[in-house]
Amino acid sequence: MDNRMKVGIIGATGMVGQNYVRLLSTHPWFEIAYLGASPNSAGKKYADAVAGRWHMREPIPENVSGIVVEDASKVDQVKGKCGLVFSAIEMEKQAILDLEAGYAASGFAVVSNNSAYRGVDDVPVIIPEINHDHLAIIPDQQKKRGWSKGFIVVKPNCSIQSYMMPIYALIRAGYPIDKMIVTTLQAVSGAGYPGPASIDLIDNVLPFISGEEEKSEVEPKKILGKVSGGKIVPDASIRISAHCNRVPVSDGHIACCSIQFAGKKPEADEIISIWRDFTAPPQQLKLPSAPVPPMVYIDEPNRPQPQKDRDTAGAMAITLGRLRRCNVFDYRFVGLHHNTVRGAAGGSILAAELLKAKGFVK
Amino acid sequence: MDNRMKVGIIGATGMVGQNYVRLLSTHPWFEIAYLGASPNSAGKKYADAVAGRWHMREPIPENVSGIVVEDASKVDQVKGKCGLVFSAIEMEKQAILDLEAGYAASGFAVVSNNSAYRGVDDVPVIIPEINHDHLAIIPDQQKKRGWSKGFIVVKPNCSIQSYMMPIYALIRAGYPIDKMIVTTLQAVSGAGYPGPASIDLIDNVLPFISGEEEKSEVEPKKILGKVSGGKIVPDASIRISAHCNRVPVSDGHIACCSIQFAGKKPEADEIISIWRDFTAPPQQLKLPSAPVPPMVYIDEPNRPQPQKDRDTAGAMAITLGRLRRCNVFDYRFVGLHHNTVRGAAGGSILAAELLKAKGFVK
Amino acid sequence: MDNRMKVGIIGATGMVGQNYVRLLSTHPWFEIAYLGASPNSAGKKYADAVAGRWHMREPIPENVSGIVVEDASKVDQVKGKCGLVFSAIEMEKQAILDLEAGYAASGFAVVSNNSAYRGVDDVPVIIPEINHDHLAIIPDQQKKRGWSKGFIVVKPNCSIQSYMMPIYALIRAGYPIDKMIVTTLQAVSGAGYPGPASIDLIDNVLPFISGEEEKSEVEPKKILGKVSGGKIVPDASIRISAHCNRVPVSDGHIACCSIQFAGKKPEADEIISIWRDFTAPPQQLKLPSAPVPPMVYIDEPNRPQPQKDRDTAGAMAITLGRLRRCNVFDYRFVGLHHNTVRGAAGGSILAAELLKAKGFVK
Amino acid sequence: MDNRMKVGIIGATGMVGQNYVRLLSTHPWFEIAYLGASPNSAGKKYADAVAGRWHMREPIPENVSGIVVEDASKVDQVKGKCGLVFSAIEMEKQAILDLEAGYAASGFAVVSNNSAYRGVDDVPVIIPEINHDHLAIIPDQQKKRGWSKGFIVVKPNCSIQSYMMPIYALIRAGYPIDKMIVTTLQAVSGAGYPGPASIDLIDNVLPFISGEEEKSEVEPKKILGKVSGGKIVPDASIRISAHCNRVPVSDGHIACCSIQFAGKKPEADEIISIWRDFTAPPQQLKLPSAPVPPMVYIDEPNRPQPQKDRDTAGAMAITLGRLRRCNVFDYRFVGLHHNTVRGAAGGSILAAELLKAKGFVK
Repeated sequence: MDNRMKVGIIGATGMVGQNYVRLLSTHPWFEIAYLGASPNSAGKKYADAVAGRWHMREPIPENVSGIVVEDASKVDQVKGKCGLVFSAIEMEKQAILDLEAGYAASGFAVVSNNSAYRGVDDVPVIIPEINHDHLAIIPDQQKKRGWSKGFIVVKPNCSIQSYMMPIYALIRAGYPIDKMIVTTLQAVSGAGYPGPASIDLIDNVLPFISGEEEKSEVEPKKILGKVSGGKIVPDASIRISAHCNRVPVSDGHIACCSIQFAGKKPEADEIISIWRDFTAPPQQLKLPSAPVPPMVYIDEPNRPQPQKDRDTAGAMAITLGRLRRCNVFDYRFVGLHHNTVRGAAGGSILAAELLKAKGFVK
Repeated sequence: MDNRMKVGIIGATGMVGQNYVRLLSTHPWFEIAYLGASPNSAGKKYADAVAGRWHMREPIPENVSGIVVEDASKVDQVKGKCGLVFSAIEMEKQAILDLEAGYAASGFAVVSNNSAYRGVDDVPVIIPEINHDHLAIIPDQQKKRGWSKGFIVVKPNCSIQSYMMPIYALIRAGYPIDKMIVTTLQAVSGAGYPGPASIDLIDNVLPFISGEEEKSEVEPKKILGKVSGGKIVPDASIRISAHCNRVPVSDGHIACCSIQFAGKKPEADEIISIWRDFTAPPQQLKLPSAPVPPMVYIDEPNRPQPQKDRDTAGAMAITLGRLRRCNVFDYRFVGLHHNTVRGAAGGSILAAELLKAKGFVK
Repeated sequence: MDNRMKVGIIGATGMVGQNYVRLLSTHPWFEIAYLGASPNSAGKKYADAVAGRWHMREPIPENVSGIVVEDASKVDQVKGKCGLVFSAIEMEKQAILDLEAGYAASGFAVVSNNSAYRGVDDVPVIIPEINHDHLAIIPDQQKKRGWSKGFIVVKPNCSIQSYMMPIYALIRAGYPIDKMIVTTLQAVSGAGYPGPASIDLIDNVLPFISGEEEKSEVEPKKILGKVSGGKIVPDASIRISAHCNRVPVSDGHIACCSIQFAGKKPEADEIISIWRDFTAPPQQLKLPSAPVPPMVYIDEPNRPQPQKDRDTAGAMAITLGRLRRCNVFDYRFVGLHHNTVRGAAGGSILAAELLKAKGFVK
Repeated sequence: MDNRMKVGIIGATGMVGQNYVRLLSTHPWFEIAYLGASPNSAGKKYADAVAGRWHMREPIPENVSGIVVEDASKVDQVKGKCGLVFSAIEMEKQAILDLEAGYAASGFAVVSNNSAYRGVDDVPVIIPEINHDHLAIIPDQQKKRGWSKGFIVVKPNCSIQSYMMPIYALIRAGYPIDKMIVTTLQAVSGAGYPGPASIDLIDNVLPFISGEEEKSEVEPKKILGKVSGGKIVPDASIRISAHCNRVPVSDGHIACCSIQFAGKKPEADEIISIWRDFTAPPQQLKLPSAPVPPMVYIDEPNRPQPQKDRDTAGAMAITLGRLRRCNVFDYRFVGLHHNTVRGAAGGSILAAELLKAKGFVK
């Protein structure tokens, strides 16, 4: 008997939703029991709803293609079908705020890819290997909002995953970081579909992504913050400056980082050991999507590269390389992650696995 | 009557040499009178010597195709043919040192693209808009080396041109810079031909270019230095950290820069005015290859881009954009230049024009 | 005194319209006197109307940026401003048919990039080097439609230009062609802006372009047809099969062609001579945009290539190469042209020059 | 106990050799027991021999990295280590002929990726789904050459795999093909490493691959031929004309095909059924690398695409699409296969599996 937990996906027909479908269709713990989308798609079988706009490289999973898509806004009709919904809905910010709150109020655990709730101080922005303890805010969130069972957790922007885990590992090891200047080289899939026009990325680089630098600078402070007094208090001690570029790469965001420690400075060998030995609750709890190890430091001087390294550990690992002294700060290094897996649907699924392992959902 | 100055090109058959041929074939001041290359090419007409490996997008200039290539190592045979040679020879470092010295000892002005002499303290590394006054070292160089008429000047590495002119303009305006962290996104033509394999740059970025970061950090100090006591004393006051990436772009290097001033800090408006109003001897002397203006600041938020901006002012201008506050340092901005024109052959030709205008060659 | 002919552009703010603006801003015969677009753009200066969506690699021409855009649908207000309009309007087919007819009825010569009128038997589809004599249909067109002075001529689809001139030159030389199988590798700019998503053309080829194969097979028959009895009777003797692909190239369509002659077969040398010696009224009349020569056959075995050859003769020449025997038909060859210049705005401007030189407009 | 058959790889350090290592390291029937390469690599552990030039996207397999590479030319030393060698050696044609014959004479079954023996009439060029019966030539080959146990079979050029299986399926179904014109769009990995320079494939297509068209036209005739009188007699009834292009794609060759039947012509529906229902000995024998089904016809109008379809069935299936009437011949369609798997190492491994299943090796 299949005793997997039933889950839903809202915004199931978009590009992020398709990634959820792809990754969840064979998940050992979760079973797709509900697909919600806009009224246009409602009533159609999933395969028909995404016909002509299925963007994954694998075919539509057979065990999902026949599921009838429902109108995601009709929350009442979802009751009993699943206990947790992954939200990849694309709407105006206020509409997202309302819809996700509606699901939470109706008793669903909501794990969202949207940025709408990221700045809200009782909603945790989770990278499971880093701020797993921020889940402790959930009872406060429920109490404050009058939700008996449902709640909302979100995943952060995809631009920051290449550097958050390596700097967190150093902080956890006793080497707090004072400041950091990072330049990202981001893949086009991060812009959703259709994203940039091909004519703008043939023989070209776009040195600007709207809103991306602000997210890359602000969200890390919240993730490194502490739960206190019913809210998450951001870490004020670290300063980050980000410059974000779009490059002609399909998947895989690179971050070129220069870091300065606040106090004592480890040797390069020690840094590499800290990264290679790093492990956290997702690994310790053997969550199905947890990469083991979560960070892979590569010795070759010209790595990590999107093409060769983005798929490491099921596209869930952070790959690192080129640790060396910086002329201006203490050290420089390069980080890479797969932006539509670790940085989007895969990261949210890992968060949901953590919620289940910790008993927040059943 | 054509009273243009006769010039030669050594290493004329390689990719940089081809750029010299392309740019000099219609030059108003210079006439190609001598082409030197390896013994393999010697004795062949230029068109035959480069058959099957002409990489320029324009055809071989008709007024050059019939010139017979000579063995570049036979310096004695060049006498009387020209007074200045552009060196784009590709050999081991020591061989380059010897060959270029041989030309200088024989009375030729040598303007070199090679890195061999860049670290030598009596050889100026020239960006004509910046350190034109370093030409004053030439008499010392000649005296020290016993050269009566010849001398050597070189151009810097192509990676630094996107940021040297904007930071120099600020320094000249009274705003010295204390430190700078720069990440470059460099075009493949910077690696010569064949350069990187296409399979390594389809859907990929290479986060490493051998030797490039060191050059990007050290050469600026010499360019910003002072002639004193028969040598060029590097500027010790500025610290630069560079991270160099290779991206799938044909021509045009981008630099994402964060700068911190040493003392007082201009407002953003003032910085843009300093850049837009900047002019220097190449413009004042109306040198044929001098871009007017030398720097173009673009207001659109997603510029400069290689595809749209590299050809500005005959591919000799530096284009700039995205000046904004930095969370960690004072300001951030993006610079771009055409690496095989401004950053290579075009930059050297501009230096030669300056030598002529200043009377160092006749 | 500027005695250039005043012309207008309708659909001036779109990508094709921008190409018209770029090419006409320095035209020796034509002066831009009117810019029409949708009501959204009406009343704005051109620079403001295209702000943030100017896609040309050169800046907006200074002599156009201040022209106030008007509502293209208000034909009455255009009278007296110009005598000829270039149409690049993007609307539903019926709306285009009505609008262009409205301009013609009001006395304007209309030269259109749209496909709407291509299938109409009294509207010539002009490639100036080929069917210049189809302009003879204009009086019939005017008479039939009750237009006293205005008329409509159109340019063909951009996919066919790489092979139409070489096959026409052979036909004109006495070697009619029975059948032809052609595979095109087309640049993304042919799809307008934004065109294909970048994620669909990174490490990929799209083996399908909607509607393109039909146009590539049908339009040549009309262009090779004859004016007879008040209409253009298509050439029924040639059969063409086209397979159209989209490739990750910015500009420049390649056609790989296999041809079989109907009767006698020339030697390869003769074919190349026919192509190299070909000249037609645009060259003989010294039209400003006419490439001289119109076709360039390149001997190197790996040419023509988009990157190296698309800009030949101001991007107006057809470049050819690889003529060789075919195992199945008689010969194979490769053709290339610049799809947004020769294949779009540049081709239409050449047609307008022909109209002027032949006295159809004054 | 591991009773897998021991196999060797000669030319194990090159790009094709690396693909063999990657694919064989987890093979259920074969165990890598010998790695041969040039004297430069001999004596080194495999991981050291390929350090800095491992081009696969997965890491070096752990069970191979420690194997000591031997000098492939010392055939005597290989005896007893394995019974079959995969040859990916890169040398001059005569040296390959000699070396592979040396292995066969010493009793090894040789399965080769090289083109050297493809034109030899007693050496079968195998596509396992098509000409499995050509293995019957092996006893003749052995007898003629005096080889008691060893023999040579080769795989064909990678350009033809996209169209050979679909046309063979039609022929087998009773619809012989008279002629075919095919244009290929080939990935850069087909050129080995480094292959084309990146500057030649950014914003470009190369309409020429040296020697490729001849192979694409000649090899199919042999594959479709018959074993008769101790040699393979090519099929003289089919004529193929091929135009081969290199496009900026990493892996996956496309073929745009127009075919004319010799006699009766099936309906489109029947063709698709023939392709979808096709099965052959590799499938019937359940060979580990055999794709099931071997051909996948995709209904979407813009498929197959390299990015989305090359990995179908472990990158061993041929994907097909766009079957439609041709204006000139009978039908057109598009085929695609993964050139470094199905078209190279994977295809050879499937041939070796067939040899084992048929008892030619033990």
